[in-house]
Amino acid sequence: MIEAAIGVDAGGTYAKIAAVTPAGRILRQERLPTRPELGPGSFVRRISELVAAWRRADGMRLLGLGLGIAGEVDSEKGRLRFAPNLKGWDGYGFKAALTRSLRLRVSVENDANAAVWGGYVAELKRRPRSVVGVTLGTGVGGGLVVEGRLYRGFTGSAGEIGHMVVEPGGELCHCGSRGCLEAYAGSYGIVRAARRVLSESARASRLRGGKSIDPERIAQAADRGDWAAREVWSRTGRRLAVGLSNLVLLLNPEAVLLLGGVSRAGHWLLDPIRAHLRRQPFAVPFGRVRLIAADNPDGGCLGAALLALEDGARRR
Amino acid sequence: MIEAAIGVDAGGTYAKIAAVTPAGRILRQERLPTRPELGPGSFVRRISELVAAWRRADGMRLLGLGLGIAGEVDSEKGRLRFAPNLKGWDGYGFKAALTRSLRLRVSVENDANAAVWGGYVAELKRRPRSVVGVTLGTGVGGGLVVEGRLYRGFTGSAGEIGHMVVEPGGELCHCGSRGCLEAYAGSYGIVRAARRVLSESARASRLRGGKSIDPERIAQAADRGDWAAREVWSRTGRRLAVGLSNLVLLLNPEAVLLLGGVSRAGHWLLDPIRAHLRRQPFAVPFGRVRLIAADNPDGGCLGAALLALEDGARRR
Repeated sequence: MIEAAIGVDAGGTYAKIAAVTPAGRILRQERLPTRPELGPGSFVRRISELVAAWRRADGMRLLGLGLGIAGEVDSEKGRLRFAPNLKGWDGYGFKAALTRSLRLRVSVENDANAAVWGGYVAELKRRPRSVVGVTLGTGVGGGLVVEGRLYRGFTGSAGEIGHMVVEPGGELCHCGSRGCLEAYAGSYGIVRAARRVLSESARASRLRGGKSIDPERIAQAADRGDWAAREVWSRTGRRLAVGLSNLVLLLNPEAVLLLGGVSRAGHWLLDPIRAHLRRQPFAVPFGRVRLIAADNPDGGCLGAALLALEDGARRR
Repeated sequence: MIEAAIGVDAGGTYAKIAAVTPAGRILRQERLPTRPELGPGSFVRRISELVAAWRRADGMRLLGLGLGIAGEVDSEKGRLRFAPNLKGWDGYGFKAALTRSLRLRVSVENDANAAVWGGYVAELKRRPRSVVGVTLGTGVGGGLVVEGRLYRGFTGSAGEIGHMVVEPGGELCHCGSRGCLEAYAGSYGIVRAARRVLSESARASRLRGGKSIDPERIAQAADRGDWAAREVWSRTGRRLAVGLSNLVLLLNPEAVLLLGGVSRAGHWLLDPIRAHLRRQPFAVPFGRVRLIAADNPDGGCLGAALLALEDGARRR
């Protein structure tokens, strides 16, 4: 019987569920609507039903379940502390509920931590000891791999890279502060920058007109030579570069991993960051760090599943 | 025979040497001029002669020697990579030279790392798992304690807190960049802020007039109610707060330890930092972190000695 762990990546709209082997191969996968308005109990019930059906159909021996969830998580207690995109779910004890319904070892993790762990395992086969992962989506999150393990910090909230301030008094962030990295490098910050670039000039641009603007469209326009789109990536990259330089100075990682949809902008994002890093005065840490953009849409559930196995191994 | 390790804290002007027991008690201590112009070989010879004299006089059994040195250090090879304040010393292999002359196990470390480790051991008896230490002197340095150990990063330069940018395009830093934390919270940055405050107004202040301005004088003036001095600490504290908030978001430490001469300004520095931390949107990490100012002038050699013992224990 094949051994696997279940990984769940729960966002505000959809959740992805996968059965993953200890080696990181995805055996099966499904997507279901999160439906926050039905409450966390309904979510746990639907997840549990799906997992029970997989167990019956495939005869998998399940080793554990890992849940990555968008919000602040108390991973020791397996409780969601605070989740702005899952209204009414604050305080819910996912670990207790899922353990009860599935009789599995359960671990609960912030979704960015899970995605970074998934990216780390999938993209960096040599498993470098110290890596910073940054998830670039609507929001900006992150996770730290220190001495080859996910580092959670004192209260489990380490890696809040998106809310590090890169411009005091700068643009407004969804968290309520000003000048956070997310306010520039989250997709809403990028779209805001695009509107600003367009408003500063009357020049024609592919970004003008009907269709709504998103990072994908801005990347496509940049590919086609659009001046405004290129200016947007240059500004975004420069802000991201300030944040990443600070991370390199502090943590001296072997690699910085850019994950999430926005990382698909590829060299449009990486070129201004690399140019900034090359100008830094500390030659060794900046010269040696590898900068990798690797969007892996399955990274969240892969990482959640593998973290559940890690946690299990540590406790045995 | 009493067991001890030698700790050396080598700055640009003076070096402190101490014999330290494994429990952290300082048995004896001396200060000698570094005299960078005589070269690193002379420095090693003078240190070795002193240690040899101590050995004969006290009959100590020496377990190792730790050198903390102001500069970028390759701690694996025990070599100084780059030291702006020790001209001509770049590239010198301290570990090889000291091992040869003293026949002891030698470890070489950045001086801020050594000072943070000394402060961690001396001030935080419970040894919390994750601590950020910031050394506030002429320059601003730092060190990270992660899972109860000093974290050095991929190439040994982790903890360069002083050069994290807190104000893009801001004040000029000694490193050549602009807007680094050190450009505001290093003593030269604080003195520059004082001159600026004085130039913005014609109001009388204790900081005006003959004597040169330094952080100690600014703290004394603040104690006596001087408006300009208080304004300087408020500005310095706000900049430092931006940097420390970023550290808390990223590392979620149990404690932040402020070390070095400037930390003696005490509440003048801590009050604006605490006010800023209280306003942050992430309640748990900011609510739980302890902020401690503890200048320990012996922290550097204490930490260097104890790190030599740690390294030894790890290799055994």
